[in-house]
Amino acid sequence: MAEGTFSFAATFLSLLEDKKYPTIRDIMTTMNAVDIAMLFDEMDDERIPLLFRLLPKELAAEVFVEMDDDSQELLIRGFSDAELKAVVDELYVDDAVDIVEEMPANVVKRILKQADPEMRKMINNILQYPDDSAGSIMTTEYVSLRPEMTVEDAIKRIRRNVVEKETIYTCYVTDKNRTLIGMISLKELLIAEDDTIIEDIMETNVICVDTLTDQEEVAQMFNKYNFMALPVVDKETRLVGIVTFDDAIDVMEEETTEDIEKMAAIVPSDKPYLRTGVFETWKQRIPWLLILMISATFTSMIITSFENALAAQVVLTAFIPMLMDTGGNSGSQAAVTIIRGISLGEIEFRDIFRIIWKEFRVALLCGSVLALANFLKLLFIDRIGIYVAAVVCITLLLSVIIAKIVGSTLPLLAKKIGFDPAVMASPFITTIVDALSLVVYFKIATILLGI
Amino acid sequence: MAEGTFSFAATFLSLLEDKKYPTIRDIMTTMNAVDIAMLFDEMDDERIPLLFRLLPKELAAEVFVEMDDDSQELLIRGFSDAELKAVVDELYVDDAVDIVEEMPANVVKRILKQADPEMRKMINNILQYPDDSAGSIMTTEYVSLRPEMTVEDAIKRIRRNVVEKETIYTCYVTDKNRTLIGMISLKELLIAEDDTIIEDIMETNVICVDTLTDQEEVAQMFNKYNFMALPVVDKETRLVGIVTFDDAIDVMEEETTEDIEKMAAIVPSDKPYLRTGVFETWKQRIPWLLILMISATFTSMIITSFENALAAQVVLTAFIPMLMDTGGNSGSQAAVTIIRGISLGEIEFRDIFRIIWKEFRVALLCGSVLALANFLKLLFIDRIGIYVAAVVCITLLLSVIIAKIVGSTLPLLAKKIGFDPAVMASPFITTIVDALSLVVYFKIATILLGI
Repeated sequence: MAEGTFSFAATFLSLLEDKKYPTIRDIMTTMNAVDIAMLFDEMDDERIPLLFRLLPKELAAEVFVEMDDDSQELLIRGFSDAELKAVVDELYVDDAVDIVEEMPANVVKRILKQADPEMRKMINNILQYPDDSAGSIMTTEYVSLRPEMTVEDAIKRIRRNVVEKETIYTCYVTDKNRTLIGMISLKELLIAEDDTIIEDIMETNVICVDTLTDQEEVAQMFNKYNFMALPVVDKETRLVGIVTFDDAIDVMEEETTEDIEKMAAIVPSDKPYLRTGVFETWKQRIPWLLILMISATFTSMIITSFENALAAQVVLTAFIPMLMDTGGNSGSQAAVTIIRGISLGEIEFRDIFRIIWKEFRVALLCGSVLALANFLKLLFIDRIGIYVAAVVCITLLLSVIIAKIVGSTLPLLAKKIGFDPAVMASPFITTIVDALSLVVYFKIATILLGI
Repeated sequence: MAEGTFSFAATFLSLLEDKKYPTIRDIMTTMNAVDIAMLFDEMDDERIPLLFRLLPKELAAEVFVEMDDDSQELLIRGFSDAELKAVVDELYVDDAVDIVEEMPANVVKRILKQADPEMRKMINNILQYPDDSAGSIMTTEYVSLRPEMTVEDAIKRIRRNVVEKETIYTCYVTDKNRTLIGMISLKELLIAEDDTIIEDIMETNVICVDTLTDQEEVAQMFNKYNFMALPVVDKETRLVGIVTFDDAIDVMEEETTEDIEKMAAIVPSDKPYLRTGVFETWKQRIPWLLILMISATFTSMIITSFENALAAQVVLTAFIPMLMDTGGNSGSQAAVTIIRGISLGEIEFRDIFRIIWKEFRVALLCGSVLALANFLKLLFIDRIGIYVAAVVCITLLLSVIIAKIVGSTLPLLAKKIGFDPAVMASPFITTIVDALSLVVYFKIATILLGI
């Protein structure tokens, strides 16, 4: 789709030059809001307000939600109060909150001023929850039913309120204290007889989350249970909102990107790469590079302390990179597998011994194959002395084993003591493994080569 | 949830020992199918059939779908034809297909034999599409309406067929040739007046995919448009099925895990880590380890060719690991960022020059800071000669720049020539960067130190 949208921009611009506004309007009304937003984000700032005003009211609001923060702010600043109100009235409360969170204070003030009191109350209510909590990503526009209602009443009620509800497909049943006591899907309502009482057909074992539950956990639950929506309750299990699957998908994606960035020694940011400035990107990358460079001092110190051995056998130096790379790769293979397993909820700390035992056997297999292959290469291709070859290959085997054990256990331990497993990944492990394998290398060398 | 489910297993077992079947049944009926399935997968094989038979018919089918292949096969082999039919009749066709795809031929034959003809036809129909295509993950149980219907007819029709349809919340409008001409959500139907004609209110610009569209692309579209379902059409744009969001979420997850594994030089598998055998895991990991070890030969060769320089200045050896690690980390930072951007559809090949220019500036910033910090350390802490320090730090700066450029462009080029960007990631790039930075290192050394 992206492809299409972009190549499209040219046509669009020329139509704009020729002031063919009706045509542009016609084209846009045939497009999906997401694609229109992407098109706008590509345009020069001064063009956006004009184009935006060409959109029919409802579509305009949908497009607005999908645009990036900068373009949204630009538009709002250009809006008359009436225009702003028109857009805000069309927004779902959770989208409104997302926008408000990104805008500077004075813009926020204008938005809240134009929102009708009901909406303003809902926005402020959601804003009070901490970032990354279920409360912060929920919407308060859900359908709630009463246990004593009949199916007919329920369906009538849904049809009456359908417009302002974000989803009507999962309905929640609450008692007079707003306590969540059950749920029923619209599908089940449509199957049931009109005079059936909700209480008799509702699902009473409702899986729900607390307003303060971490959004990552919320996303994992969607993933596990394939829900379309998940109810959010307060300390007294009163229903306060719902999270819909589309927001959960966004969270999943955010969290995965964060994990991947951390595994690559990057400080995560939630901005797309192309919209992140050079300086910001630098700030994401320099901290770990510095830390890792300094921690590499150990490896230097180890090498220096064996300077004489090396002077005697300069050939040993030639294999340091190969040994370190192989160790590093073996380690990150294990680390990344475990980290992904943890964030998918497939692996827990209690599995640690199973994992060590498995990794040990895998390492033995990998290590031996690598060592053997390398040994033959050293003897018959590089024609190196059998003792040196032995030193290199024994080190290879041992460092693969070390790497896999360290790589698989470190993330689990990190998780256990409350650190982020992803941060423990490849780069950090590489440094540790480097140091260990170098020590092994020189120890074996001094023994076998008697230096 | 997982936590809960497991600690729970103990209680469950003791109830089982005491043959408290009614109690167990009561407990299970209060549980979500997913949790019951996880519990079963934890149990010893011989217990599963007994427990399964305690489940009420409908719940049983739900649980069955969520169990792992091994347990499913175990159950089917134990089933009487009647039991098997009971389960199969409750399945949605896309779930049935998922199961059939995992089972050995003789089991498949039994399943198809028990499925009613209609179901069998649908299963075979879906089985004909290639793996990872939209056709292979779609379901054929969708609601299709006719343009001339009134809203009242449509709702009646939906209520009549609701039971066997996987989703009724998005309805598709087809003409008499089954060509897809529009769509309408149940929500819009409920808002509309009873006597409105579907054709007048349906959305006519329907975004759809071809049966052969890659499942990753399908997942990306869900992600972009927040659809609940996506229609799948054949070459003649006849509607043949729909993909629902829950299947799309599973695909997203699979594809992300694959990317992450590839980035870590692992041959992807679709089995969870803990259920993969040692030998299988070995097969996933050894290929890249071997390739990378052998490609590290270049670095060895480079070092050997500078043996004399090193013999003259053994101190240079001490910084090889630090230089290589820093280069490797800088490279994978860039690579991983770009790869993720590509798979999220945020970055395309046409951005390559913007990216190179950006990465160059980021590299300049990162490189200078690292070089400076290191220079001071070498002079005042390690008390190393200023010339050697200069050699190390100039190399540091240059290799960071090389690493970022190589790391960011390689994935884009890979994508362009139809390779998988993820495979081009960190390990591969590390090897290239290692070689390049070593050459730079020794060249500069020979010049500045006159060796």
